[in-house]
Amino acid sequence: MSVPQAASSLQICRIMRPDDANIVGNVHGGIILKMIEEAGCIVGTRHCNIQNGDRCLANLVRVEKTEFLFPVFIGEVAHVTAEITYTSKHSLEVQVKVMAENILTGAKKLANKAALWYVPCSLKNVDEIMDVPPIKYASAELEEQGRNRYEAQKMERVETKARIEEVMSSPPNPEQHTVGFSQSSLIHLVGPSDCTLHHYVHGGVTMKLMDEVAGIVAARHCNTNIVTASVDAINFHRKINKGCVVTVTGRLTFVSNKSMEIEVLVDASSLVEAKEEKFRAVSAFFTFISLDKDNKPLSVPPLKIEKEEEQRRFDEGNARYLQNKVKRLANKERQQ
Amino acid sequence: MSVPQAASSLQICRIMRPDDANIVGNVHGGIILKMIEEAGCIVGTRHCNIQNGDRCLANLVRVEKTEFLFPVFIGEVAHVTAEITYTSKHSLEVQVKVMAENILTGAKKLANKAALWYVPCSLKNVDEIMDVPPIKYASAELEEQGRNRYEAQKMERVETKARIEEVMSSPPNPEQHTVGFSQSSLIHLVGPSDCTLHHYVHGGVTMKLMDEVAGIVAARHCNTNIVTASVDAINFHRKINKGCVVTVTGRLTFVSNKSMEIEVLVDASSLVEAKEEKFRAVSAFFTFISLDKDNKPLSVPPLKIEKEEEQRRFDEGNARYLQNKVKRLANKERQQ
Amino acid sequence: MSVPQAASSLQICRIMRPDDANIVGNVHGGIILKMIEEAGCIVGTRHCNIQNGDRCLANLVRVEKTEFLFPVFIGEVAHVTAEITYTSKHSLEVQVKVMAENILTGAKKLANKAALWYVPCSLKNVDEIMDVPPIKYASAELEEQGRNRYEAQKMERVETKARIEEVMSSPPNPEQHTVGFSQSSLIHLVGPSDCTLHHYVHGGVTMKLMDEVAGIVAARHCNTNIVTASVDAINFHRKINKGCVVTVTGRLTFVSNKSMEIEVLVDASSLVEAKEEKFRAVSAFFTFISLDKDNKPLSVPPLKIEKEEEQRRFDEGNARYLQNKVKRLANKERQQ
Repeated sequence: MSVPQAASSLQICRIMRPDDANIVGNVHGGIILKMIEEAGCIVGTRHCNIQNGDRCLANLVRVEKTEFLFPVFIGEVAHVTAEITYTSKHSLEVQVKVMAENILTGAKKLANKAALWYVPCSLKNVDEIMDVPPIKYASAELEEQGRNRYEAQKMERVETKARIEEVMSSPPNPEQHTVGFSQSSLIHLVGPSDCTLHHYVHGGVTMKLMDEVAGIVAARHCNTNIVTASVDAINFHRKINKGCVVTVTGRLTFVSNKSMEIEVLVDASSLVEAKEEKFRAVSAFFTFISLDKDNKPLSVPPLKIEKEEEQRRFDEGNARYLQNKVKRLANKERQQ
Repeated sequence: MSVPQAASSLQICRIMRPDDANIVGNVHGGIILKMIEEAGCIVGTRHCNIQNGDRCLANLVRVEKTEFLFPVFIGEVAHVTAEITYTSKHSLEVQVKVMAENILTGAKKLANKAALWYVPCSLKNVDEIMDVPPIKYASAELEEQGRNRYEAQKMERVETKARIEEVMSSPPNPEQHTVGFSQSSLIHLVGPSDCTLHHYVHGGVTMKLMDEVAGIVAARHCNTNIVTASVDAINFHRKINKGCVVTVTGRLTFVSNKSMEIEVLVDASSLVEAKEEKFRAVSAFFTFISLDKDNKPLSVPPLKIEKEEEQRRFDEGNARYLQNKVKRLANKERQQ
Repeated sequence: MSVPQAASSLQICRIMRPDDANIVGNVHGGIILKMIEEAGCIVGTRHCNIQNGDRCLANLVRVEKTEFLFPVFIGEVAHVTAEITYTSKHSLEVQVKVMAENILTGAKKLANKAALWYVPCSLKNVDEIMDVPPIKYASAELEEQGRNRYEAQKMERVETKARIEEVMSSPPNPEQHTVGFSQSSLIHLVGPSDCTLHHYVHGGVTMKLMDEVAGIVAARHCNTNIVTASVDAINFHRKINKGCVVTVTGRLTFVSNKSMEIEVLVDASSLVEAKEEKFRAVSAFFTFISLDKDNKPLSVPPLKIEKEEEQRRFDEGNARYLQNKVKRLANKERQQ
């Protein structure tokens, strides 16, 4: 990995601090996601402004499914490398790699790999989408692969709509290990530090809040040290602007022998607009695992299902779980 | 250049930043409360360690009712002056004054005055309360007045217990301007920065979270720029330690023509303790007012009462409101 | 309780938190530099606005060489005292002292002494430099000494230009203990919290980032606990404004038996401006030492020189090292 050369790649690094981690010293997945998005936003915005015309900002619209390969610890230096890997007429793909370096031993490990999609919005008129200057590909094959990824995500984004379900409600005195017992919500008033140059919340800030709630749900369910194992593809349906109150709610949908799937919903509403329109901005599934003192996975208590819709969500989660397992095995075989 | 004068007084100052304020530029009351408590904790801890014996930490047990006299703005410098004004065998009173200075015009205004009670806890054994070294009073009259304040708060602390009500619940689709409509909750995972020395949350951190929730409740009710006008006496019933999840919930109890009273409850529970014992750590009443563009008070929409217990809480709030009004008038007359 | 005395002096204090320190508990030098600059900016801005006329802001243009005399630890209270010690027609000198107080034992130590030069810029037109109201000196001798310091720094500021070297580049797979091995970069998107009044980054924020990168370089070279020992005089050539991306790069220039000299370059460029003009905003030399568990200095691995220009920079660093050694000895003798 080399130092920032071209406008289309970038490297960030930062020491992980106590506030970035839980009490055991594991850096929160949300902190990693936030760094990844900051790098993506810089490299994307910089690229979209290399041409003449209105100034614009790269706006996150989608993060592909991402896996946390190794836990990162306090005192380690996280190196985030971002590179533009595909451009369509109105969107661009940034691939990001996170290496964690123990500066005392020199050991390095690959902590995360992610792919993000951005759309450039004019600074004059946020609803106007601008053209993306094309990049040059090292080979026709790389371009072809990029186009396939582009088509695949486009189709998925059209299919997936924000889940516009009712407010999550829970029984007053839930029993331990039920869905209602661990369900958690937080509200956050969007402040200046959460926002881009525009007055819109960085996608990374939203992901950090989502990871925080998911982590509390997971810890309440199993009362152990928990870490983010993966995040499903996330689509950002609506921009959230300054002065909004964001409500982030998480609930368990599925529990396997050693993992928990948590659905997280993000709703936003303006504090000062009288009409008080509340909208579903983002939704995603986070998977957490429980670790013992030596960072080995622990068993997770089973989930007590009480209602019909909980069973339906459990079955859907189980299907996702099995699908991912099949994919992982296929990937392994291909690599052999 | 001189070093901190006496061990029993202290001055802190800091420029107010964008992140300390709402979008209109008014610094959040919670930021002021947090600075006040930091000053109190330093001066109290320093005083209790001037003698030989076990090292100890001043632990906040009570804040007297405090009024926000003037709003503070971004870019102003807040000067917080703290002084020990009374000591009993096991507790001490710190009086704190906050001046806001506009460094461009030189204008200064008194933004806040507060009184806090601390109890020294041994660093070896947090449950052991230590002796407080006595201070010297400038006059017998000052000592007498301090003793009266001490007796008064002692009696109140014995009387007030944490309100051990059930979890606040709200109807699924509440109508605007009802109690359920604006009720809000946040959860916060206690991190290292919340607890400096010891492994217990600073009282100031808790007050900041309480103010944040109360502010969201108030803004949801009237959709305007709102600021903290006052906080009732707060008793800290239980210490909250690192690794806890704190749930802070606020709901409207009373609305007058130009003010809103919000009850805020703080519950804490350990994330990693299997028994998952939840406890009510703090409860208090915050009063907010709504301001127009020139910082003049606006009318507040009336509160729609739907349930019997809401009416009961409204009447109690009204009684507190009238009591405060009488007190304020009496104070004014005394000063004339 | 009294309000800030004279307009020309100020005291700030704050408890050091876990996030201010490295994993061993040593507070980062960058945190101290940031507090020093905040105090200087307040006292300077306040002073320049005591007269009628346009309101203005004190803008940091230079920090004199500063030494870190004692490490500061988490839980200690840092007292920063700032005083205006000289005024010329268009600039003023602020001398700052940092005392670290252990509030449990009452022990105090002098952690740092620094001198900063500010120039007042009009709030209406940032490029307009304002007049500085003169201060009164306690003696003609003090004024004379101040004038000498003023003339000396003026000459140096004219001599030193920002080092306009090419971007630092490094070999792809560097060997351990070479310059390329430990070279590090970080990128920071300037946010609202970095710029309080005006839309320009506080000098203290930049110094904190520089110290962070230098610390990473030093730790990578010797894989031990490292702390800032001193910072060379820093000249701030250009203002950095909101919306800029700042790239901070550090590389080893010289290593003695027990110290490492790291050159840090700060480049800034606008994210959205098409011309993408990158400019060198600041450059400086940081010296770090390596500490064992008892905070005693350790030996540092020698630096493997690979290129001609590395040797040239090493020799220049060696000359600075020897010069400082001579100065320190001369100071000692003078004090005896």
